[in-house]
Amino acid sequence: MEALHLGRGAVGHLRKTPMERSCLSSHAPTRASPGLNVLGVVKSVRCSSSGSGVVQTERRGAVIDGKSIAGQIRKEIAAEVANLKETVGKVPGLAVVLVGTRKDSETYVRSKKKACEEVGFASFGVTLPEDATQEEIVNCVNQFNDDPEVHGILVQLPLPKHINEEAVVGAVSFEKDVDGFHPINVGTLCMQGRKPLFVPCTPKGCIELLLRSGVELKGKRAVVIGRSNIVGTPAAQLLQRQNATVTVVHSATTNPAEIVREADIVVAALGKAEFVRGDWLKPGAVVIDVGINAVDDPSTKKGYRLVGDVCYKEASQVASMITPVPGGVGPMTIAMLLANTLDAAKRSFGVENA
Amino acid sequence: MEALHLGRGAVGHLRKTPMERSCLSSHAPTRASPGLNVLGVVKSVRCSSSGSGVVQTERRGAVIDGKSIAGQIRKEIAAEVANLKETVGKVPGLAVVLVGTRKDSETYVRSKKKACEEVGFASFGVTLPEDATQEEIVNCVNQFNDDPEVHGILVQLPLPKHINEEAVVGAVSFEKDVDGFHPINVGTLCMQGRKPLFVPCTPKGCIELLLRSGVELKGKRAVVIGRSNIVGTPAAQLLQRQNATVTVVHSATTNPAEIVREADIVVAALGKAEFVRGDWLKPGAVVIDVGINAVDDPSTKKGYRLVGDVCYKEASQVASMITPVPGGVGPMTIAMLLANTLDAAKRSFGVENA
Repeated sequence: MEALHLGRGAVGHLRKTPMERSCLSSHAPTRASPGLNVLGVVKSVRCSSSGSGVVQTERRGAVIDGKSIAGQIRKEIAAEVANLKETVGKVPGLAVVLVGTRKDSETYVRSKKKACEEVGFASFGVTLPEDATQEEIVNCVNQFNDDPEVHGILVQLPLPKHINEEAVVGAVSFEKDVDGFHPINVGTLCMQGRKPLFVPCTPKGCIELLLRSGVELKGKRAVVIGRSNIVGTPAAQLLQRQNATVTVVHSATTNPAEIVREADIVVAALGKAEFVRGDWLKPGAVVIDVGINAVDDPSTKKGYRLVGDVCYKEASQVASMITPVPGGVGPMTIAMLLANTLDAAKRSFGVENA
Repeated sequence: MEALHLGRGAVGHLRKTPMERSCLSSHAPTRASPGLNVLGVVKSVRCSSSGSGVVQTERRGAVIDGKSIAGQIRKEIAAEVANLKETVGKVPGLAVVLVGTRKDSETYVRSKKKACEEVGFASFGVTLPEDATQEEIVNCVNQFNDDPEVHGILVQLPLPKHINEEAVVGAVSFEKDVDGFHPINVGTLCMQGRKPLFVPCTPKGCIELLLRSGVELKGKRAVVIGRSNIVGTPAAQLLQRQNATVTVVHSATTNPAEIVREADIVVAALGKAEFVRGDWLKPGAVVIDVGINAVDDPSTKKGYRLVGDVCYKEASQVASMITPVPGGVGPMTIAMLLANTLDAAKRSFGVENA
């Protein structure tokens, strides 16, 4: 697939869950596949929330370690940047536009800048006040559009309520649209015979996790839960481009469990804590959990813990591979943002992508 | 759905098949639904091509009469045009660019022009020689882009081999792109919260047939067979916009029959004669057959007959409703082209769509 140009070779990034490690002394591996740490362990788990709950299986899913794979990708990008610096004398540049003082947005922007610096990118940023006008924001975007040192532009969302987000995001040149949200990039992603310049980072990260984990997609049935513009819809398109047979489940789907049970690959991106239960899964399915939901947990210091859209305890007993939350899809998003920016820079430098 | 603005009220366009008519004397209707001419007839049919072949069912599908529905839509459009002429003093204009002398293309262009004239549109056309340069064709498109009397532009495909089709089609302003092929219109079709200016005519016609036949789509399972840019992919998006749960089956799908059997609504658009068999269908499914394939038939004057992508004889015994070939989806394509052009004109005149 054109959007995923980085090398493949991180199959070894699958790691054991803490629970698996705790079982190691009493159970020997029986059905491990190459590169997958799958243990032949009988285990019965009851999920904390209500539902049918009990899932029994002979095997437990290998964990797809997004943090480790993302780290590997960042290393590959850093090496490419060093090489570009030497051969072309230039480095990729990413510009981030932040409006207002939302704490979460400030945190995201900081991590993006840090990630840029770590791989050797030039990092540009503008912070506009909460009461900035739409014209001011668009002007700022346009300056970056015109700046040859900036190869990717990111407008941190959400924008203040008085701003038309569509107009601001639409002002980003589709050639610097590293978020992949421009209608032209969305359209060409859906078109046979066309290539988008950029694919949205989170779904691109999902596919990268699958490919780097050696998951065969061609001819497999994939179910994407959720149809958002930033995850579900592009994830479905990307899976179809890999020749999977894709079904999109959404809020109006009457029998989600039944449909998910047909899937060899499940991508959950609906934003509901532990919505997908273990008994929704076909044994051996591969599960990519995009959700990050905070649920109350007085036993923790912060009073909450993060869970995915999938009930991990149950699903990990049924799936052959599964991403944890946190540490699964999350770290891939910034890695893919860096990959998109690198792509843009190489196009601008006239350097062929592999 | 924004793209389908015409009135609903053509449920009565479902008609009986010739076979049904021939059975009328000996069988009384037993399970007819309002607006559907469904007969309770037991019938066993063997399809002409190979396969499991025999399908038995208690009911037979009502025919969705595309010719009649398209005729109704054209009448509605003609009435709107007459009204615009009176109130705004202007009529919609469609420009068709034809390159070369392909017989089939000439025929298509003639029928489009004729359809335009019948509803009162202004019709513009340019025919360029087979050896026209890309620049000449693009110049021609640009002239129509700039012409305020032209609201829709159509480049008749295929273009001669020395021409870059993507570049020519991409030259059509997305605001006059009545074919709905521009990446911006493709992208916005896929995006929640966005509206494409135009939806490709054939899949738009498929949905219009379903809606005007009173088929409930929300929460239903739909399977689209084929993922082409002009039919399959936009049909899947349109069905999802109607809140159906959609699966796209394609050439790499390993078990198409099994998947099609899950569907309440089947849209077949793969271009293979009678590929979908009767026993692929869930009893009571609604079948929209987009295929038009010529198969040898020495018993006919022309030596061939037209069949769809679905084995009609078998499928009509299992489906609750089905489009015939010809006379199903076919006539809807030009009707939707007229509808798209009317939309464009109304936008240009500042007249609100209903």
